[in-house]
Amino acid sequence: MIQKILNPRNLLFSISIIICIFIITGDAISETDPLPSWNDRSVKNYIIKFVETVTNPESNDFVKPEDRIATFDNDGNLWIEQPLYTQLAFAIDRVKAMAPDHPEWKTTEPYKAILEGNYSSLDKKDLLEIIATTHSGMTTEDFELIASAWFKTSKHPKYKRSYSELIYKPMVELLEYLRANGFKTYIVSGGGIDFMRPVTQELYGIPPEQVVGTSVVTKYELRDGKPVLIKMPEIFFIDDKEGKPIGIQKFIGKRPIFASGNSDGDYEMLLWTTTGPGKRFGLLLHHDDAEREYSYDRKSHIGKLDKALDAAGKNKWVVIIMKNDWKTIFPYEN
Amino acid sequence: MIQKILNPRNLLFSISIIICIFIITGDAISETDPLPSWNDRSVKNYIIKFVETVTNPESNDFVKPEDRIATFDNDGNLWIEQPLYTQLAFAIDRVKAMAPDHPEWKTTEPYKAILEGNYSSLDKKDLLEIIATTHSGMTTEDFELIASAWFKTSKHPKYKRSYSELIYKPMVELLEYLRANGFKTYIVSGGGIDFMRPVTQELYGIPPEQVVGTSVVTKYELRDGKPVLIKMPEIFFIDDKEGKPIGIQKFIGKRPIFASGNSDGDYEMLLWTTTGPGKRFGLLLHHDDAEREYSYDRKSHIGKLDKALDAAGKNKWVVIIMKNDWKTIFPYEN
Repeated sequence: MIQKILNPRNLLFSISIIICIFIITGDAISETDPLPSWNDRSVKNYIIKFVETVTNPESNDFVKPEDRIATFDNDGNLWIEQPLYTQLAFAIDRVKAMAPDHPEWKTTEPYKAILEGNYSSLDKKDLLEIIATTHSGMTTEDFELIASAWFKTSKHPKYKRSYSELIYKPMVELLEYLRANGFKTYIVSGGGIDFMRPVTQELYGIPPEQVVGTSVVTKYELRDGKPVLIKMPEIFFIDDKEGKPIGIQKFIGKRPIFASGNSDGDYEMLLWTTTGPGKRFGLLLHHDDAEREYSYDRKSHIGKLDKALDAAGKNKWVVIIMKNDWKTIFPYEN
Repeated sequence: MIQKILNPRNLLFSISIIICIFIITGDAISETDPLPSWNDRSVKNYIIKFVETVTNPESNDFVKPEDRIATFDNDGNLWIEQPLYTQLAFAIDRVKAMAPDHPEWKTTEPYKAILEGNYSSLDKKDLLEIIATTHSGMTTEDFELIASAWFKTSKHPKYKRSYSELIYKPMVELLEYLRANGFKTYIVSGGGIDFMRPVTQELYGIPPEQVVGTSVVTKYELRDGKPVLIKMPEIFFIDDKEGKPIGIQKFIGKRPIFASGNSDGDYEMLLWTTTGPGKRFGLLLHHDDAEREYSYDRKSHIGKLDKALDAAGKNKWVVIIMKNDWKTIFPYEN
């Protein structure tokens, strides 16, 4: 045996294999902090402990890679949602861009208010109307181009930066950490699916097919003999509240083992996730950082966090306190 | 430079790397026929040529791995659909299993006809009714167990084998071949999404999240404080004809570069796929093998292939002639 190993050819081969292993595992051995933007507090430790447990084949709580499904809300959870939902900021900019072709808007509400910059008077019905106006009547491919272009030119009122820069760095690290541990990461958002998909790969490393969201009816039509899909001004599916577990079932067909949200709209998704069998993780982000970002919860019209916050204790959901848990918030800070 | 390479440490390292490469690529070098159940005819060669072209980084028709989306119809394309759709055979068996709890069915159509074995009298309305009756009123998780169990005990009238054995081996090889070349393979079927998902991983290597299909409305409900999803007797989405490109857009958000079907229900999916920019592949299966399987096309009530067959030439869709192109049909034959 020893002789066989010491045979020059075998020895060379053995050394090569050892070097192979070293090259392949080198990165893992020199592993550094997977969540550098998170302060070393209990939330970070709970997350790491959970991931280490469900990926450990020796553990009773081991979960097979194909069942490691993690779902993330988007607005106020992966990207900013104050002072207006990002998609609403987009719709307002679209109304302004489309106004020259609609002179009647100067005297018709809610367009008049928007063109005059009075967003505070807009109610829910107005918002649905301008979303319908600005998100329909074009092909899915044309809408994709419009949305992609907007992210490059948009400017947030507080930060004076593009909305694509206003994503939460700690959450992007968390997504990467989960994927590095065999999780499949999904967005499950009340926002428009066609609005998010053009940018989720670049912003979060999440491909279009892993985005679940609210959508409008789409119509198949032939134009010059070629099929196109037209976005219609009619809701097909609302992926919010009860719609989240329903959307997860429709699109993914598996119950997540990890869910992350920041508002009452995520309550049902968190409950659906954490009441399943085996080890589960519910994560709730509490925005309390008025200085670095925004502070809002129970009384907010956008991203209201009330019922879900009350339910966190009973359901053992882990609550992120932005002020204490996040070392940095946006990627541009480093 | 030469001296650097000849330095004993570097030399050992270089040799190791070469051996590493050899070990890693060894399998590829000794590659055998990826489609052994296909006869060496033009269809097989067209498929291989297409895959080699779009995966060749030197080619103008190279497609990035993330855009290598392939969609497959299921009924009559991956599994058998004659003399009755597999899902209909399931629904009929369910009516029989549920009959003891429904004594009124003995005298009520269409249940009476089914319990007496008269399937030929059933029209489309009857079919929708028995599908609604047998596919709703339970949680999604309970339905999954019922469907999984049925596949194990079911028996096909011609082959006297379980329906899970009556899948097309050449197509399973094609799915594997595409995946080995970086494609993401999807089912896009008019059949029920919840009926297919419990078995697609085992039968085809396709996970639940890559199955697009027809679905019913699902209701979120609390039972003993825990959420459940209930299947309702109401259609949510029909994934057939125009519904296929629409479903693809909703679920995947990318246009496929490869689509495979066998009936007029696949016409729009094939057209949507093959009219996109760049190199595309449309594949149409023609059942003409009455001896080994079934022979049917333009006049068939199930899997009617008429309009799509006429359109194949103009759109350069490749037509599989089952009798000539397939060496074996079912996995158990080998």
